[in-house]
Amino acid sequence: MFNDEMLSLGCKRSAIRELFEFGKQRAAEVGADKVYDFSLGNPSVPAPAEVKEAMLELINTLDDKTLHGYTSAQGDLSVRTAVADSLNKKYGVSFGADDIYMTCGAAAGLAITLRALCIEGDEVVLLAPYFPEYGVFVKAAGATPVTVKFDGDFQIDFASLEKALSPKTKAIIVNSPNNPCGVIYSEKTLKKLGEMLTERAKLYGHPLFIIADEPYRELVYDGENVPFIPTVYSDTVVCYSFSKSLSLPGERIGYIAVNPACNGARELYFAILGAGRALGYVCAPSLFQRVAAKCLNARPDLKAYDENRTLLYTSLCKIGFECVHPKGAFYLFVKAPNGDAAAFSEAAKKHGLLIVSGNDFAAPEWVRIAYCVSKDTIIKSLPSFEKLYSEFV
Amino acid sequence: MFNDEMLSLGCKRSAIRELFEFGKQRAAEVGADKVYDFSLGNPSVPAPAEVKEAMLELINTLDDKTLHGYTSAQGDLSVRTAVADSLNKKYGVSFGADDIYMTCGAAAGLAITLRALCIEGDEVVLLAPYFPEYGVFVKAAGATPVTVKFDGDFQIDFASLEKALSPKTKAIIVNSPNNPCGVIYSEKTLKKLGEMLTERAKLYGHPLFIIADEPYRELVYDGENVPFIPTVYSDTVVCYSFSKSLSLPGERIGYIAVNPACNGARELYFAILGAGRALGYVCAPSLFQRVAAKCLNARPDLKAYDENRTLLYTSLCKIGFECVHPKGAFYLFVKAPNGDAAAFSEAAKKHGLLIVSGNDFAAPEWVRIAYCVSKDTIIKSLPSFEKLYSEFV
Repeated sequence: MFNDEMLSLGCKRSAIRELFEFGKQRAAEVGADKVYDFSLGNPSVPAPAEVKEAMLELINTLDDKTLHGYTSAQGDLSVRTAVADSLNKKYGVSFGADDIYMTCGAAAGLAITLRALCIEGDEVVLLAPYFPEYGVFVKAAGATPVTVKFDGDFQIDFASLEKALSPKTKAIIVNSPNNPCGVIYSEKTLKKLGEMLTERAKLYGHPLFIIADEPYRELVYDGENVPFIPTVYSDTVVCYSFSKSLSLPGERIGYIAVNPACNGARELYFAILGAGRALGYVCAPSLFQRVAAKCLNARPDLKAYDENRTLLYTSLCKIGFECVHPKGAFYLFVKAPNGDAAAFSEAAKKHGLLIVSGNDFAAPEWVRIAYCVSKDTIIKSLPSFEKLYSEFV
Repeated sequence: MFNDEMLSLGCKRSAIRELFEFGKQRAAEVGADKVYDFSLGNPSVPAPAEVKEAMLELINTLDDKTLHGYTSAQGDLSVRTAVADSLNKKYGVSFGADDIYMTCGAAAGLAITLRALCIEGDEVVLLAPYFPEYGVFVKAAGATPVTVKFDGDFQIDFASLEKALSPKTKAIIVNSPNNPCGVIYSEKTLKKLGEMLTERAKLYGHPLFIIADEPYRELVYDGENVPFIPTVYSDTVVCYSFSKSLSLPGERIGYIAVNPACNGARELYFAILGAGRALGYVCAPSLFQRVAAKCLNARPDLKAYDENRTLLYTSLCKIGFECVHPKGAFYLFVKAPNGDAAAFSEAAKKHGLLIVSGNDFAAPEWVRIAYCVSKDTIIKSLPSFEKLYSEFV
């Protein structure tokens, strides 16, 4: 009677959302202090002070029609100009306002970009471990996801990638800093990727696009450098979100930046406009477009995430877990001691530990622990991690 | 190289958006006072005072994680409860929180509902005159739009509808008060529609859904009654928006209400959850979910719209135009004196009058004039309407 694919997507939900809902229910039953919810990338660090200041200033100075009215479909011109200028200043590039399309977060950006790029039968390469919704967005765009396994240090496994690319490849999604494993792709890795894609583009006679999903661009530790991919590989579309950099995930604000130097840049931008229309996006939320433009240089308190990172990484390693040392984002990727992430994360629930099985990340031996929680939650959860570990070794 | 359909959608834009952009450009060139922009349904009436109060209260009392964090995909539970309670109180129905899905406005609601309902090959009936994006959303869901002409008084032409329905019909979109003609479907019209759909459902062996697009539900004049369609016809999904009732079109906030008494209600709700995921909607903007919940009974200053309505209707009739007397929404539907809306609206541009040709509304003899502008704009525009008229008779 209905669309079966949508029904099955809705019934299954994402494993992450499922856990998040379970946690809320469980907290109501046994008390929030007995649930250690590491499921969702919902920042615990408050929005930077500039966000509240910007909101209040806008609310108190702008007339309602400017503040709450429709903007152009691609976003308010002054906002897009501010975003482009900021990118140009930071990365020495030459984006214009008309290369920027404001979106309801990076998820919308990805869904729109994929719909603009792909036709039925196209393939989109996903580099494991990857955010499970990528597969959903790729299929919704009529394309087929092709998974490439990770190598030992969680950089790109180029031998696998080489086999995964085909004349049907339209794009590859690159997510660095990476959710779920916290790795940052080095400039060397990205250059090698760029060279391989350039070579294949020549061979196939059409460009292969990188879609750079970058919600974690600003969340890096130890002074690590995150290369801006359009400077390394020209056929790149960036999907950015302010969800993490401004701790505003519920407000759904981000942008697509189409590299003006990419193949067919003007056409691609218009196809993005069209895809936004087709998917029902009229414009990105107007107040938060303006808030974001005023807070392009604001950052959340990274120190809190950094402390959590060190505490959780050190403590879990000490217990005996094998962990990937995260360089960015706010996730710790931990190997299930029995190599079965689904069973392990299910067992963890009994200890009140909500951690996401890597199955949907194409990493069935690993689990993701989101450490964007209070430090206290981590401290209190450690005895439970210890008990859980002892069950599995 | 890209998706041609999306590219063509993006290049064409909607006729309305095209005019809106032209108006902004034209205002920059010749001065805003020489451009009478009647193109877009962008409310001129400020948001009701409750909106600002609610925003400030929320910003000043809620912690950032609650205020700006992810909500459940279907919307915050307290918000959905408030929406359901409000519907139940107003219309004597029995909606629960789990029948409500918060959306980024009615456009998102329609795109999501159509995607949840339809499979390739389905047909969706559109009652002319209709909002042009309906066709875009229907096609994006893989279905085919089937247009039914209007009758003399702009109610439903049942003889045409009878021919348009087929075993492939999955749904019919009903928009009352109507954009673009301002008509409200009477209870009698809706009952007759319900009877016809019930009969066909029996004949075809599957339900035919009404998708009630209701952004203008609260914008009615002369004490007119807008029947709540789920009370007339059970297989109804309501797509509501706060864009007009709270003058917040840019904030993208609304909801889908699935009638719990409809066929397959639970499944349909889950298919909507799935479609939301597939289209990249993570949750509706969190601050404005809460603002909307606090302002369910707030209304904009309808008096201003009502004055505009009377002024514009009377003045244009006096000039000689044939106009539909609007009972709701904020659009005046006017017959092009030469019967060619495209040529007429193009000629209007030369007088600085931005009015939308009815071609894309499936009413090629009519134009739409959005009177959600300042009264001053209407007064100053009248001499130009007079000149324009004289060119055509």
